[in-house]
Amino acid sequence: MTPQTALIVFDVNETLSDMSPLGQRFADVGAEPQLAAAWFAGLLRDGFALTVTGAHPAFGDLAQESLRVVLSTVVPDGELDDAARHVFKGIAELEVHPDVVPGIRALAETGVRMVTLSVGAAEVADRLLERAGIRDAFEATLSVAEAGRWKPDEAAYRHALDKCGVPAGEALLVAVHPWDLEGAHHAGLRTAWIDRAGSRFPAYFAEPDVVVESVGELVGNV
Amino acid sequence: MTPQTALIVFDVNETLSDMSPLGQRFADVGAEPQLAAAWFAGLLRDGFALTVTGAHPAFGDLAQESLRVVLSTVVPDGELDDAARHVFKGIAELEVHPDVVPGIRALAETGVRMVTLSVGAAEVADRLLERAGIRDAFEATLSVAEAGRWKPDEAAYRHALDKCGVPAGEALLVAVHPWDLEGAHHAGLRTAWIDRAGSRFPAYFAEPDVVVESVGELVGNV
Repeated sequence: MTPQTALIVFDVNETLSDMSPLGQRFADVGAEPQLAAAWFAGLLRDGFALTVTGAHPAFGDLAQESLRVVLSTVVPDGELDDAARHVFKGIAELEVHPDVVPGIRALAETGVRMVTLSVGAAEVADRLLERAGIRDAFEATLSVAEAGRWKPDEAAYRHALDKCGVPAGEALLVAVHPWDLEGAHHAGLRTAWIDRAGSRFPAYFAEPDVVVESVGELVGNV
Repeated sequence: MTPQTALIVFDVNETLSDMSPLGQRFADVGAEPQLAAAWFAGLLRDGFALTVTGAHPAFGDLAQESLRVVLSTVVPDGELDDAARHVFKGIAELEVHPDVVPGIRALAETGVRMVTLSVGAAEVADRLLERAGIRDAFEATLSVAEAGRWKPDEAAYRHALDKCGVPAGEALLVAVHPWDLEGAHHAGLRTAWIDRAGSRFPAYFAEPDVVVESVGELVGNV
């Protein structure tokens, strides 16, 4: 841990939570499990489109309605609300990736301050971390809902910095999503990319300051 | 055709072009055809993320690099550039949907002015329309490349309006993508949604002024 990292800001969806069980939820309602990836990318696409036009959508509304949209061609009209609700409820029941609990515990021992910052609701992050038994390692679970702007807008990251009283240059954003690192970099934070799948970081975004395969690898590297 | 519609602005990708052959291109390089939908949603997600941070990416660069990213977990490193190029080249060889040629011809007979406005390159739209034999029906093929901002930013639609000297209230944006209609609505244009698949329009975007199942249905409805 280098002295300049006073605060680690963790993304939540997919960075801490393992979203793969949502594929089974799509299968439960008669859709292909692979639709989960296209749905989540489309949800973010639409949320960012609204952000571009100056709007500030509620994640839960967007998530449920975007589920109705992608399921509308495979589920009968009369079952659409129930099907969307079934998949949506899966978000609240996700578990953290296997590397998260030992990694967060090891980071906590270094004394670094940690918060989460999600486009989703703070309560969902609270419950996820409580189920994993690591809620106490985080001093706050923050959401773009209170920031007035979605990530990757600068204002979202600034909300976290302001809440914690930490300058951008002393904070590190940790995420699996390259677009999130790009927004944080633009806002002046340092960035760490968690690449669990061994994939490629898009060259059209600023290179991450740190690349790791698990949360625990951040110890001694940031 | 109501008197107030002086100009129809058509989106290009998927609205005029049939992108379904790209699924076969993914299969050609060993990926699942369904990856095409997740790739394109992710490409737009990342383009919009860059737009949120104030950047103005080149569509071709983003398309090719995002292909390398999604293919990186299924294609060996040494074949990645070739595989991405193979899929990317497919974009330049797409054809229009079956309803486009008769629909555009029927609209042209009403005397309405027509242009295209794409996040992609103007040359790709030119060649698509030339192959279909309907390039002459459009007075210009415009791109966000010259607008300085991607759709759905207001500046992109304003670029088309300025080029044509038409006030926003006399222009109609036609697209299959709800996020595009949302941006146009925010910029003051009227909107028409082409819903070829019989799907659902997301309630988190402003309702389209017109909903049709084919280009030809716009005649007499706008």
